[in-house]
Amino acid sequence: MNCSGCLIGVSLGPGDPGLITRRAYEVLERRDAHWAYPVRKTKGSSFALEIVNRAGLNPPGPASPLVFPMTSEPLELAKAWQVAAQTLLPVLGGGRDVAFLVEGDASTYAAFGYLSKAVKALDATVVTQTIPGVSAYHAAAARLGTPLGDNDDAVAILPAAYGVAVLDRLLNDFDTLVLLKVKPLLDELIAWLRRRGLLRHARFVEKVGTPEERIVEDISVLEGEVVHYLSLLLVKNPARPRGRLIRGCRPKSFYHA
Amino acid sequence: MNCSGCLIGVSLGPGDPGLITRRAYEVLERRDAHWAYPVRKTKGSSFALEIVNRAGLNPPGPASPLVFPMTSEPLELAKAWQVAAQTLLPVLGGGRDVAFLVEGDASTYAAFGYLSKAVKALDATVVTQTIPGVSAYHAAAARLGTPLGDNDDAVAILPAAYGVAVLDRLLNDFDTLVLLKVKPLLDELIAWLRRRGLLRHARFVEKVGTPEERIVEDISVLEGEVVHYLSLLLVKNPARPRGRLIRGCRPKSFYHA
Repeated sequence: MNCSGCLIGVSLGPGDPGLITRRAYEVLERRDAHWAYPVRKTKGSSFALEIVNRAGLNPPGPASPLVFPMTSEPLELAKAWQVAAQTLLPVLGGGRDVAFLVEGDASTYAAFGYLSKAVKALDATVVTQTIPGVSAYHAAAARLGTPLGDNDDAVAILPAAYGVAVLDRLLNDFDTLVLLKVKPLLDELIAWLRRRGLLRHARFVEKVGTPEERIVEDISVLEGEVVHYLSLLLVKNPARPRGRLIRGCRPKSFYHA
Repeated sequence: MNCSGCLIGVSLGPGDPGLITRRAYEVLERRDAHWAYPVRKTKGSSFALEIVNRAGLNPPGPASPLVFPMTSEPLELAKAWQVAAQTLLPVLGGGRDVAFLVEGDASTYAAFGYLSKAVKALDATVVTQTIPGVSAYHAAAARLGTPLGDNDDAVAILPAAYGVAVLDRLLNDFDTLVLLKVKPLLDELIAWLRRRGLLRHARFVEKVGTPEERIVEDISVLEGEVVHYLSLLLVKNPARPRGRLIRGCRPKSFYHA
């Protein structure tokens, strides 16, 4: 993992420092790497850095906070990735590995993917590596003691922003819905789940694994409340009628039936 | 995490011992816990135990291999959970914690969920805990350097056994499909992806993170091949037309438009 001038996406898990993997921790303990981490605005705090600090670790030297604004404007975002890439390029070019700290899993949250692309656009020879991590929804399922998916279950993970019409349609095909970024839509989601008789099969988890973690089993109490943006709903859909499954042990003719 | 007589689901990640979390490793280093792990038949090998052995760890004493047969027969399975629960009950009742070793993430693979239920059915006072882990699909995305989900992407995770008719329908709503247990259906899946122009957006990953890991970028070469059951397809669906997303920063009236 020490490759001189590599950009390493270091997944930290959702907040509990115990959920950092051994490989990630090893990179964080290195004193020869350069740390970078996302912030939303200049001099803003970094959730990723907080997780690492809770693990008792500090940067091996001056680190690079990289500003990734909370926007969906493609031009503004592209400019932010570009600036971030230009910040890291001299470090990478000098042969130092850069550890980019990412909350949750680096392949699930967009920042590291965009940063990698922007760096490679400036210098195609830079090698990037990703250390995968525990996602917030896996941690939430573990805290709830609920399977994310039982045997043969279908699981959908998507931002609530697609709206209840889309989510409602997905109940035909999925046993579990993990709804991310529920904050702006929570009241609509609760009304929809009530309508579909799924209220008691839904759980709300906020800032899982952090000292501020909150688990709500009766989500109807959240109506009208403004929740943290790091929150999700785990919705089980136990009454779904399932089609016939095609299993490995069936005769070959079955597949073409 | 030491609670005297607890049943702990210890997620180990998909195969690379570096992807074991610090919390899981801590439990595995304890010399006062009892280890249990799933095997498919009496005296069969355990993939979970292999991961731990690769991490250089050994059981603190005699361990319990628990037979969970590869079947979808509910009665046969229920009997296996029952036997497993009865094996562990005296250990738990004696005040020793049991570490149940699980490959991948304990909430994603069914074994730990069923075992917990079976144990609690025999003794409702037993406390269970789950340590979440890195899933195979997160590790696969990291190895491929592909985002599992970009910003606002919808991700579906399901066994290929639902068949191509269902999978095809999901292309309307999902940007990424993670297809598990592809072994019996691989040829059909390849034909379907070719038909839909998605062959070059699909990647095959087998036994991710293990010494036998195999990544196939041009999956058409797999036609006619019998692959390992620990394999998955990661399918990106870049041409999907997306509806309007409902974002937090829009005016309230937008939600009701």
